[in-house]
Amino acid sequence: MSDCMVVGLDIGGTSTRALVATTAGAVLGRGRAGGGNPTTHGAQAAAGQLRLALTAALTPINPGQVRAATIGLAGAGRLLANPDTRAAFDEVWHQVGLRCEYAVTGDALAAYAAGTPHPDGTIVIAGTGAIAAEIRDLTLHRVADGHGWLLGDAGSGFWLGREAVRRTLTEIETGQPRSPLAELVSTELIHGIEPGLPARRTVDALVQAVNAGPPVGLAGLAPLVIRAAEAGDPAATAIIDEAARLLAGSIGRIRADGADTPIVLGGGLLTGGTSLTTALASALRQRWPAAPLVTAGDGAAGAAWLAARTLPEVTDPADLHHRLLAPTAN
Amino acid sequence: MSDCMVVGLDIGGTSTRALVATTAGAVLGRGRAGGGNPTTHGAQAAAGQLRLALTAALTPINPGQVRAATIGLAGAGRLLANPDTRAAFDEVWHQVGLRCEYAVTGDALAAYAAGTPHPDGTIVIAGTGAIAAEIRDLTLHRVADGHGWLLGDAGSGFWLGREAVRRTLTEIETGQPRSPLAELVSTELIHGIEPGLPARRTVDALVQAVNAGPPVGLAGLAPLVIRAAEAGDPAATAIIDEAARLLAGSIGRIRADGADTPIVLGGGLLTGGTSLTTALASALRQRWPAAPLVTAGDGAAGAAWLAARTLPEVTDPADLHHRLLAPTAN
Repeated sequence: MSDCMVVGLDIGGTSTRALVATTAGAVLGRGRAGGGNPTTHGAQAAAGQLRLALTAALTPINPGQVRAATIGLAGAGRLLANPDTRAAFDEVWHQVGLRCEYAVTGDALAAYAAGTPHPDGTIVIAGTGAIAAEIRDLTLHRVADGHGWLLGDAGSGFWLGREAVRRTLTEIETGQPRSPLAELVSTELIHGIEPGLPARRTVDALVQAVNAGPPVGLAGLAPLVIRAAEAGDPAATAIIDEAARLLAGSIGRIRADGADTPIVLGGGLLTGGTSLTTALASALRQRWPAAPLVTAGDGAAGAAWLAARTLPEVTDPADLHHRLLAPTAN
Repeated sequence: MSDCMVVGLDIGGTSTRALVATTAGAVLGRGRAGGGNPTTHGAQAAAGQLRLALTAALTPINPGQVRAATIGLAGAGRLLANPDTRAAFDEVWHQVGLRCEYAVTGDALAAYAAGTPHPDGTIVIAGTGAIAAEIRDLTLHRVADGHGWLLGDAGSGFWLGREAVRRTLTEIETGQPRSPLAELVSTELIHGIEPGLPARRTVDALVQAVNAGPPVGLAGLAPLVIRAAEAGDPAATAIIDEAARLLAGSIGRIRADGADTPIVLGGGLLTGGTSLTTALASALRQRWPAAPLVTAGDGAAGAAWLAARTLPEVTDPADLHHRLLAPTAN
C-alpha cells in the first residue's frame, strides 16, 4: 500500500507555493503562483492563485488520496473570520478534487516549522515586513510586531529601504560627502544626482520618486543597503546593525532571557545568508548563547509537515521533518 | 490720501487664511476658508478656497487699491511649476478684482516673517508635518526635513501620533502595566481595551483602526501625547522629549553652531505653548544660548508684511512688523 499524502501551502504577498508529499517524506509535486494574500489581493484573486499553485502540485497524483493539508497565511485569523474568503478557498479546494479538510495557520508558524520540528521556540521573519513570535507546542503563543509598515515592521525590508532614503536625504541636505549607499539609492530612484542642482531640488525629486509608488515599494531598496554594507560602506553597515538590533528587540519582547529553545530565521532578508543574517545572529548569540539558530526552509514544506504530524501513520515526526526539510545551521 | 493696501495669504492643508492691511499697519479685513494646498487638494479645489478667503477679506475695500500681495504656500516651487494651478489662481485673482501681481513663497518663509522682521534667522515648524529652514535676507536659504510623513517629518504631529500607537502596542504585547497614554490612545482608537481579550486581538484591532484612515490621520493623536505628558505620564514625556530632540536635530542640520539670529517657532504644535514648545525651547537654549526664541503669529499677516516691505511707502519695515504682528517672546 502506498503512503498517504499531505498538502502544504505557503501563501504570501508575492507568491503562493504548494507542495504535495507522502508521509514517508517523498515530495511528489510542487506548484507556484502569484501573491495570494486575501487581505491585500482580495478573496477572488487570492483563490485564483491558490488554484494555480494547487493544480500544478497535484498533477502527478490523485487528489482524493490527500489525507491532510495546512495553509500557512499571513493574517490567518482574518481569513477564518471572513466568510467570503473562506467560501472562495473552499470552492477551489473542491474544484481541484481535494476531499480532506484543511487547517489554516499563521505564516509565522509555517516558517517556524520550516526550520525545526521542536515544539517550543522562536521564529523571527524579516522580508517586506517583520514579525517575531514565540511558539509553544507548535502553536503561536505570543507575537511581537508584524504591525505593518505604517506602525511597525522594525528591521524589515521596508524599514531598511526607508532608512536608506532618509540617510540619502540627510547627506544631501547637510552637504556632507555622499556615501556609496546614497549614490546607489539616488541612482535607483532618480538616475543619479544632477551636478550643480540645488540640494532642495534633489531632495524634492527623491521624495517625489518615493511617493509616486506605494509605500511598501521602499522594500525594493533593501538589497541596495545589503550590497553597500557588504562592500564595506559604514553608512549602510550602521543601518544593517540597527535593523538587527530592532529585530533582536522584537524577539526580546516575547522570548525569555536565557531560553535555550531554537530560534528560526525566516523571510527573504534572513534566509539568504546576507549581512543582516550575520548581524542578527551575532546579536542573538550574545543574548541567547545556548539557543540553536536555524534558517527556515520552504514554508510550503513546513506547512505540509504540520499537516502530516497530525496523522496516526506518522510515528516519528522529527524524522519526517528531516526528510522534508534538511535543516541549515548558521 | 489713504494708505495703500496689501494682501497676505497663508495656504495650508487644513485652512486658507487671507488678510488685508494698510501699509500703516491697520488690518482692514480677514478671510478664512478650508484647506487649499493644490498638491493635496487639486488646483480647482484649492482655487475655490482661495476665492472664499479672498472675497471675505476684501469685502470692506476696493480691491483695485491693493498694491502688493504675497501667498505663503507649502510646496510653492511646485505651484509655480504647474501651469494648471497657476492659471486657476490667476483666474481667481482676476475674479475678485485684484489688479496687482502676487508673489508666491514657501509657507516656511511666511511663518518666519510672522515671527520676526530680522532678515536672517531660522524657522522651525511642527504641525501635521515638520520642517526647519535657514532664512537669509528674507529668502529660504537651506531646508531640513519637510519630507512628508513617509520619509520624514521627524518630531511632527504625525510622528507624535505614530509613536503613541507604537508605545501602546508594545505595552500590550509585553503585558507591562499600561501607561495613561496607552489608555488614552486605545480609548480614542477602539473605545478602550476589552478586559480578557488576548493581546494579539487587541493589537490587531488597534492596527486596523489606524489603517482604516489615511496615514496622516495619526497626527490627530498628537494632542493625547501632549495631554498625557502635561499630566506627568513618563511614557508621553519620553515621546515629547524625543520629538524635541529630533526637531532640534533638524535645525542643527541647517543652522551654524553659536548663531545668535532669531529662531522662530511655528506650526500648531509649537505656537500653543505646549509641553513640546517647552521641551524644544530648552533644547534650543542649550545649543544656541544667544538666540532669541520667538513664536510665530498669523502666517497671513507675515505674508502681508513680506508684500508690504517691497513698497516704497514702507520706510520702516520693522515698525510695520510690530504693528501687524506684536511678537510673543517665549
